[in-house]
Amino acid sequence: MYNHAPDDYICPICIAIEGIEDDRTMIRKSDIVYQDDLVTVFIGSFFVADNPGHPIIVPNKHYENLYDLPDPEAHQIISVSRLIAQALKISHSCDGVTIRQNNEPASSQHAFHYHMHLFPRYDGDDFDKKISTSRKSTAEERLPYADKLRAAIKRVQS
Amino acid sequence: MYNHAPDDYICPICIAIEGIEDDRTMIRKSDIVYQDDLVTVFIGSFFVADNPGHPIIVPNKHYENLYDLPDPEAHQIISVSRLIAQALKISHSCDGVTIRQNNEPASSQHAFHYHMHLFPRYDGDDFDKKISTSRKSTAEERLPYADKLRAAIKRVQS
Repeated sequence: MYNHAPDDYICPICIAIEGIEDDRTMIRKSDIVYQDDLVTVFIGSFFVADNPGHPIIVPNKHYENLYDLPDPEAHQIISVSRLIAQALKISHSCDGVTIRQNNEPASSQHAFHYHMHLFPRYDGDDFDKKISTSRKSTAEERLPYADKLRAAIKRVQS
Repeated sequence: MYNHAPDDYICPICIAIEGIEDDRTMIRKSDIVYQDDLVTVFIGSFFVADNPGHPIIVPNKHYENLYDLPDPEAHQIISVSRLIAQALKISHSCDGVTIRQNNEPASSQHAFHYHMHLFPRYDGDDFDKKISTSRKSTAEERLPYADKLRAAIKRVQS
């Protein structure tokens, strides 16, 4: 429903979920912090100014946006978002968490596979003004955020 | 968990869900477009520049934020958000839908009852720059948005 991916779209998120590392996706195995039968969580490739290393939750099956997302995936996404938000408070020492999920290009959706951003927030971070000026990170830059978040998820689950 | 409401907090969202209209809440019965056993959806009192009349989904029981939201409410919120997003495409003739949900004051959470914003998006609306300059609307201004959204929800459900 209201899909925008071209017919020959190669989905970088599907490729990453399959565990493939090549030029078709920026996501590396080392970015993945959580995975179950329905959803995967990884550190996003683009860093927002003062909110670096934020995680993204995706359904393992390909659905372009919220309009098409079935209940089993939707329910797991919001349950896991609660777990990740609790873990972010520990791993990223943040003062708050902002959920953002974009549907269609008019909403700044760039990857055409449903994905929910969880941004760590800090007092006075001027996030709304800076969100549109994100920069591409390197896999090495993402490692410490992934390691800390993975450890925090285990701590919350225990 | 990580709560910020003062001990004597009078929750404007709880009051509105109970169907009370008085000076403690800006939400009017005419703002409510959907309600079931677990969640309520109403047109938000604050309008963002070129994205006026956006709906907000809340759990009927009082939980301050995502960290504390139980699964039954969380699951219904994301399922109903899909219904409302589909309806917004009709009622607000929008080009996309942005989900935004703020946890804690550092994330711009002002009302201390979990709430998820669904913003109708339009090509070139400059939303990110204007989101922080929202203005208080009148109940009369919200009426046409509520009426159209209510009708669109019925159309999607049929």
